Amino acid sequence: MSKLRVGALVSGRGSNLQALLERSAEPDARFAIVLVASNHADAFALQRARSFGVPAAVVERKEYPTRAQQQQAMVELLRQQEVDLVVLAGFDRVVGTELLVAFPGRIVNIHPSLLPAFSGGLHAQAEALAYGVKVSGCTVHFVTETVDGGPIVLQTAVPVLENDTAASLAERILAAEHQTLPRAVDLIARGLVRVEGRRVFIDAACESKEMNSEVEQR
Amino acid sequence: MSKLRVGALVSGRGSNLQALLERSAEPDARFAIVLVASNHADAFALQRARSFGVPAAVVERKEYPTRAQQQQAMVELLRQQEVDLVVLAGFDRVVGTELLVAFPGRIVNIHPSLLPAFSGGLHAQAEALAYGVKVSGCTVHFVTETVDGGPIVLQTAVPVLENDTAASLAERILAAEHQTLPRAVDLIARGLVRVEGRRVFIDAACESKEMNSEVEQR
Repeated sequence: MSKLRVGALVSGRGSNLQALLERSAEPDARFAIVLVASNHADAFALQRARSFGVPAAVVERKEYPTRAQQQQAMVELLRQQEVDLVVLAGFDRVVGTELLVAFPGRIVNIHPSLLPAFSGGLHAQAEALAYGVKVSGCTVHFVTETVDGGPIVLQTAVPVLENDTAASLAERILAAEHQTLPRAVDLIARGLVRVEGRRVFIDAACESKEMNSEVEQR
Repeated sequence: MSKLRVGALVSGRGSNLQALLERSAEPDARFAIVLVASNHADAFALQRARSFGVPAAVVERKEYPTRAQQQQAMVELLRQQEVDLVVLAGFDRVVGTELLVAFPGRIVNIHPSLLPAFSGGLHAQAEALAYGVKVSGCTVHFVTETVDGGPIVLQTAVPVLENDTAASLAERILAAEHQTLPRAVDLIARGLVRVEGRRVFIDAACESKEMNSEVEQR
């Protein structure tokens, strides 16, 4: 059976990319990472890609006259690799019209909060801690023109502990991200994810019970 | 040891009140419900109070020229019973200045979502479902002049399931509320709850591990 061809956009360390690469290497994986593109040449994520034999591209802003042209360059790279699904795996820029038009309903992002809470910024974990929530988590959602506002595929709840710092909370949420993102991509690859308006349904009862709306066990 | 004297404001069925009354009747309970006041004469919660031998008062809006006077009447009833803590247990009105000034930092509310998500309205469960979240829950928070915006004592995460309706989700969240509200009042009664700015700390490590940030087990 052919695998879903996934392109990942990254900006940094790439630990979520690593989780995807490891999952894709398992025998029953239904998706393959066929391209990793970074907007920073020094992103460690690029090394992770290469160590899995995945083409790694750099598409830095400074190489293009406009942001639109930079994003169009990403689109072309993704198209060259016949990418079916684009995954933002720690991508630090808002996705523009070029990518949204080229991959309508086929871009997913992971955000380190239970959306719609603490959307928008790059410091959702610190915001959650400062707000004083007792439960946070992570969200995999489809990307639309509304930042952090697209239909939600999966969410995992993570407790906030008494002595948490922004760093310790971010680390706990990140561990959940590493489970949740590959799971979401896997469900999409298996054709089990159905979007109806704002709601996302995971088809097949066995999958939905097991995989949907994960809540971390203490 | 003397018990914390709790006054409950209710409007309806009173299932959260029932959970509080049952907890207060346990031998190790550190709080007592000393007054239940309803803004609706036909609230079933009043019968629940009476069946536990708790004074039940009706303070309907129509009996007072202004909303402020109605709330002041509630304040006087609560003061007559020397209430230490006011619990909004399904109270369908925003608490006004009169109550906030009379019981500063001593009013708690339970809200059927993981605040700050889906704050404000009376239909948080339906809003969560329509938004398409995969995890919702309930929040016990101190009441301030900002509706649903006060410091959070406890939150419990609850999964949203594939075939949920607003009613089935509300029922699942309500079951969590029945655990979370008595637990929060109990922690306050034991003097273990400390507010620092927006953050609430549960003192004593054993309590915090066991009771804080409950995440429902599947």
